Amino acid sequence: MKILVINSGSSSIKYKLFNMPQKELLTKGVIEHIGEAGSEVGDHYTGLKIILNKVSSVDAVGHRVVHGAESFKEPALVNPLVIKKIKQCCSIAPLHNPANLAGIMACDKLLPGVKQVAVFDTAFHQSIPDYAYIYGLPYELYTKFGIRKYGFHGTSHEYVANEAARILKTNLSKLKIITCHLGNGCSITAVDKGKSIDTSMGFTPLEGLVMGTRCGDVDPALITHIMRKKKMDMSSMDVLLNRASGLKGISGLSNDMRVLEEKSREGNKRAALALEIFVYRIRKYIGAYTGIMSGCDALVFTGGIGENQKDIRQKASLDIFKHLKKKPKVLVIPTNEELMIARQTYQLINRAEKRNGSSGLIFECAGGSPDEKSGDGYQP
Amino acid sequence: MKILVINSGSSSIKYKLFNMPQKELLTKGVIEHIGEAGSEVGDHYTGLKIILNKVSSVDAVGHRVVHGAESFKEPALVNPLVIKKIKQCCSIAPLHNPANLAGIMACDKLLPGVKQVAVFDTAFHQSIPDYAYIYGLPYELYTKFGIRKYGFHGTSHEYVANEAARILKTNLSKLKIITCHLGNGCSITAVDKGKSIDTSMGFTPLEGLVMGTRCGDVDPALITHIMRKKKMDMSSMDVLLNRASGLKGISGLSNDMRVLEEKSREGNKRAALALEIFVYRIRKYIGAYTGIMSGCDALVFTGGIGENQKDIRQKASLDIFKHLKKKPKVLVIPTNEELMIARQTYQLINRAEKRNGSSGLIFECAGGSPDEKSGDGYQP
Repeated sequence: MKILVINSGSSSIKYKLFNMPQKELLTKGVIEHIGEAGSEVGDHYTGLKIILNKVSSVDAVGHRVVHGAESFKEPALVNPLVIKKIKQCCSIAPLHNPANLAGIMACDKLLPGVKQVAVFDTAFHQSIPDYAYIYGLPYELYTKFGIRKYGFHGTSHEYVANEAARILKTNLSKLKIITCHLGNGCSITAVDKGKSIDTSMGFTPLEGLVMGTRCGDVDPALITHIMRKKKMDMSSMDVLLNRASGLKGISGLSNDMRVLEEKSREGNKRAALALEIFVYRIRKYIGAYTGIMSGCDALVFTGGIGENQKDIRQKASLDIFKHLKKKPKVLVIPTNEELMIARQTYQLINRAEKRNGSSGLIFECAGGSPDEKSGDGYQP
Repeated sequence: MKILVINSGSSSIKYKLFNMPQKELLTKGVIEHIGEAGSEVGDHYTGLKIILNKVSSVDAVGHRVVHGAESFKEPALVNPLVIKKIKQCCSIAPLHNPANLAGIMACDKLLPGVKQVAVFDTAFHQSIPDYAYIYGLPYELYTKFGIRKYGFHGTSHEYVANEAARILKTNLSKLKIITCHLGNGCSITAVDKGKSIDTSMGFTPLEGLVMGTRCGDVDPALITHIMRKKKMDMSSMDVLLNRASGLKGISGLSNDMRVLEEKSREGNKRAALALEIFVYRIRKYIGAYTGIMSGCDALVFTGGIGENQKDIRQKASLDIFKHLKKKPKVLVIPTNEELMIARQTYQLINRAEKRNGSSGLIFECAGGSPDEKSGDGYQP
């Protein structure tokens, strides 16, 4: 079965074509500058038309969708109800979900009758218990506005946790694993018996670890304090926290780990400090998750930084387990979110075909009817 | 030596009179409703006059001062320079430092010639290394506006860490201690070899654990998100985070732990959830600090909740150490910030008198002249 995996961003579409279940990568590519001034690719529809000219005979499409809120605990076969739910999630993921949807809608037009599956970055974290996902805020903010921890990078955390179990030749249900996805965005997850029980990103991908340009955890009182001190409005504040902070903000140099490592070696103190802070925050989360799981069997590093920066891995795990009865294995596992999406798409379509005799779409949206919750005003 | 300890808040002055070094408590009390409508006590000066009528022959005064920023790494003998520095800290502690200062100024008038010592809530945490106190924000926010983690409850954490060493009959310099101050405000500190190396409160006392009415750690993106959704201005947002959140906000019932425990036993789910969240956040910090210290010799509970709620202590420490080679001792130690202030006041005055032949005030403000840093615009 040829499965096209689509990762549709605001101005780009990345794609990979897999032959499944053989996991054979047939082709891949990226369309960039969509909708930008002077670009030949005006919209996602045009972009996908170009892609479909390059790939042939697509049997199914798997889409990365960033936010599935509480509606999607697993991948979903796309149908009008699922589209409606993904749209509803746009208000809590305004940067990502509209672009993901644009990719789905373009495929719907260009590949009529071809099944599409939405695979959510948040779905893996839906197993997190309420005492870990509810914030210390007025409870109505959860019931009325869907404000809670969702977590992201779920496809990556799930993929590398599965790979770790395979490498350790142990059933995932017997393992306590901490997965560190360190790339442009960084998050860390406690995977207990195969389920995410906590993760560092929150309502948005801003919470948690220090990242390239994102601040991660800060005193919540600082937001209004800085807005007052610097006479900033809310939009500028969002930009400061998301684009001018993190490694870039601390170092004043770059959000690129390789640049910072070089500058640090040359004696630049703020580059060195940025790296130390980056590592220290990872260490604190590893400690916290080791504590709540009462141990750790494997610590997994993945993502651009996690896979390539040996120094970061070593400093993040140095002495952090020496007081434990049993030391975890430290593993480096290249992530492959696209393969995971292809695999989940393949599995879901197979299941659906078995149940429905190979015809008709089924509604795979968790939590029953998408209108069930709207009575109390919940519009994620 | 009779030492009067003053904890001067915005509308109250708590006091205790100690005979030192015998640690003998001679008298104590509180003046309330200062400056409130219909109150007979119009200001701190009037309040302190009432107190001084009740106590006799004060040899020295020790003041609790909430914020000493980076200027005060230890207690300071009050002089005009010290007062100036405390004033400068008002902009980052607008709720507390002005009230603390009012107490100092009143004593200055009412007890001419009597030595006063300022003991800072932040001082004990000045040993925290930069990689733990610098946020993932643009570095200029630190150099220009003093934005960094300061930590609070320092006097309490230092006191119980010292007591723990005494109880364990081990020199503090050989111990890794985690101190949990759980009261109206809650904070937790990693005390390594007697020094604070990290603490959960930050630039303000809002960060960290979930508290009675304070939110603790949340996704920093939530502040502007909630302000937009609920059309709130910055002041209302500050009130929401500080006064309507925490145990009270989650439960919708109360910020009183005893009420929540009762309601939880009666089957109230949100009361139970509030308690679970409260405990879970403590567990995560205990795990994190155990990790960064590579172990823990003693876990200390103090403060109203820490001293009295056995159930919270048990749940917070359950299974969190069972994977460690060496289990820490779990101790309950009643805090005594006033005694600690009296002790530090006594020690400082003794040191000063030895050096100066018993006359004259010395400047004990760390970091040299208070104007040293003003060149780069630093006004904490």
